[in-house]
Amino acid sequence: MPSSQRGTNQEAVRRHNLGTVLRHVHRTGEISRAQLTTAMGLNRSTIADLVGELAELRLTEHAEPGGGGTAARRTAGRPSAGVRVADEGPYVIAVDLGVDRAVVARVGLGGRAFERAEAAITHETEAWQVGASVAALIRHVVSWAPAEAPLLGIGISVPGLVRRSDGLVRQAPNLGWTDVSFGSIVQAALDLDVPVRLGNDADLGALAEHNRGAGLGVDDLIFISGNVGVGAGIISGGARLEGAVGYAGEVGHLNFDPRGPACHCGSQGCWETAVGAHVIAEALRSPGDQVHRLGEILDEVTTAPRELRPIATDIGRGLAAVVNAYNPSVVILGGYFRPMYRLLRAEVNAGLAERAMAPAFESVRLSLPGLGTDSVLLGAAENAFEPVFADPVASLATAVTDARSRLAG
Amino acid sequence: MPSSQRGTNQEAVRRHNLGTVLRHVHRTGEISRAQLTTAMGLNRSTIADLVGELAELRLTEHAEPGGGGTAARRTAGRPSAGVRVADEGPYVIAVDLGVDRAVVARVGLGGRAFERAEAAITHETEAWQVGASVAALIRHVVSWAPAEAPLLGIGISVPGLVRRSDGLVRQAPNLGWTDVSFGSIVQAALDLDVPVRLGNDADLGALAEHNRGAGLGVDDLIFISGNVGVGAGIISGGARLEGAVGYAGEVGHLNFDPRGPACHCGSQGCWETAVGAHVIAEALRSPGDQVHRLGEILDEVTTAPRELRPIATDIGRGLAAVVNAYNPSVVILGGYFRPMYRLLRAEVNAGLAERAMAPAFESVRLSLPGLGTDSVLLGAAENAFEPVFADPVASLATAVTDARSRLAG
Repeated sequence: MPSSQRGTNQEAVRRHNLGTVLRHVHRTGEISRAQLTTAMGLNRSTIADLVGELAELRLTEHAEPGGGGTAARRTAGRPSAGVRVADEGPYVIAVDLGVDRAVVARVGLGGRAFERAEAAITHETEAWQVGASVAALIRHVVSWAPAEAPLLGIGISVPGLVRRSDGLVRQAPNLGWTDVSFGSIVQAALDLDVPVRLGNDADLGALAEHNRGAGLGVDDLIFISGNVGVGAGIISGGARLEGAVGYAGEVGHLNFDPRGPACHCGSQGCWETAVGAHVIAEALRSPGDQVHRLGEILDEVTTAPRELRPIATDIGRGLAAVVNAYNPSVVILGGYFRPMYRLLRAEVNAGLAERAMAPAFESVRLSLPGLGTDSVLLGAAENAFEPVFADPVASLATAVTDARSRLAG
Repeated sequence: MPSSQRGTNQEAVRRHNLGTVLRHVHRTGEISRAQLTTAMGLNRSTIADLVGELAELRLTEHAEPGGGGTAARRTAGRPSAGVRVADEGPYVIAVDLGVDRAVVARVGLGGRAFERAEAAITHETEAWQVGASVAALIRHVVSWAPAEAPLLGIGISVPGLVRRSDGLVRQAPNLGWTDVSFGSIVQAALDLDVPVRLGNDADLGALAEHNRGAGLGVDDLIFISGNVGVGAGIISGGARLEGAVGYAGEVGHLNFDPRGPACHCGSQGCWETAVGAHVIAEALRSPGDQVHRLGEILDEVTTAPRELRPIATDIGRGLAAVVNAYNPSVVILGGYFRPMYRLLRAEVNAGLAERAMAPAFESVRLSLPGLGTDSVLLGAAENAFEPVFADPVASLATAVTDARSRLAG
């Protein structure tokens, strides 16, 4: 091997290690060097070098042992023993694109959501108009960022099928989109060459709950999104189940009742037609234009109306298919399934017990999200951070260092 | 690190490399050293050492370039440039346990099935009686083995839920089994301390089709087993989808029609109740005791009777759920689905198109098995071979070197 090539390989290994250290700091917010040494199986001086380089790159900063940072805890003469994410360090923009509105937040390493903003999206809006709204929200949120903090990228969650290879939104029925390159639309509206990564809402919810929510340390979990439509994000054996093109987990369109209503997907009697937001809103006699606020409306309910009970049972019956198909150990109920489960836990469990195979049923538990209503938003952020963990140096090279001034115009 | 520990690690790496070379030879049957060097990224002398050691262990033997072995092709003075599985080398016993009969075969490295034997299993047989029948078949088949060839292990396929941690058959409804440690039963019946590995029939079918059948080189494939019951073995991103305990892929028990008949799993209207062997046998007016021979009966049919058409459509409709759930690029139709698809391709495709989401439908194709009716049997063999690829030295240490004489008694 020529020595220049060997040098390139060593550099690749170093960047990989740098990213892995950063990922550990990001997951924990703060971590001691001793913990890093154990977690990574590298020696102490290598860890010290990597930590030093991350600090030079302004991705992390030194932290006192115990995280207190008070003078009393400091051991005189010893270097500080920990590392944490930089206070005014790089950030990403997370976009949770719902059917009726977009939520945008600025999120720092460690998963800290700083400023956020949201706007309604009316039903007939074209994709480019949605892009313009999202861009305005991004400008607004970035205007609060520290002047010199680099913008690493934008992560966008979409309620639809996203092609893994290029992020094309192949189909988002509730938005009325087919083959929309929404990432490029947002870049165009911002007039900014910034990395954009799109993902399916349920996949991103699963990612965030796995990294820092109710699925922490769980290798086989499913996040069910209830966002007008119904989908699942699946982590199996510790890794995302993607499928050939990225569309795995369309559980809202599993067969449920062949005599059921027509589904917007073209089929009939899909699970979504029995437990979708429209069905629940109708049972609540909620005005049709309020269907997109269903989660909030249900959050205000303290005693479940009788009319919701059969729907809760059907939620459990559909979850039985999810449990039989994927054999998860935890199913996290997101979106409007969160309040439905809080209100009607017995009915959901009864429906699940009725239809799931006994051994699979015995090995699963249902759970509320650990991140409240932010699972999907924080998952969009996690997705946007991915490149910086793969290679911090390359990611910083494509970051926008003057985003605040560039977007102020 | 103490030098003895370093030595242990180097030994582990060497055994790992040894196993990986053997896996390459097993997959291909015969491979040149140049191909091995490329595939493994090791240098030529290391490959030569590993190949030499495999030959000493009698796992492989030298092969002439081109595989011809004729004197004309030999380049005088040069060492032979290839390696192939040993002709009278170690073998495994593969057992395909169906609902009505067991098929047993002796399978060598390279996936070559040598002698085979089968026996009927009557419906009321207890698990230990089935074990005794299987043991008798194994004795029969082993009696034909080369006297000194080591028996590496036994791989058994079961139509039911197999717990990954210990191979316990948690539930095999069509056999009437709950919590049966069938591996221990077979060991007891043979009075032989031989490694036994159990797997679900669909999982093993997927494994064999992925390694050497219609799924060769396909990272996202599903094998559908039709063996009285219906199940799926799923390879996703190149790896088996197992789920938390090993039960993923119970697609026969996905919801299909809530007004459908009761299912033996305890639920109602599962897909299996619409497309299971009993339904097809009834449509064919086949006698009830012939239901287990359904694949063979269908193999003799040249023109599909009209009565099978709606069942074929329901096969496609249920496959739509499989496609929506896992987004595979290939679905391989095994068991009695193989002749059903051969006879009624248009109906199956129409049912699939009717219910699958368009982007997922566009990225999938249906396929007949590449291994005919042997997918599951050869998958049981592949599973039994796994330990020898992980560590050939350790696997040979637990192999039974005098199996023929030990089992002759």
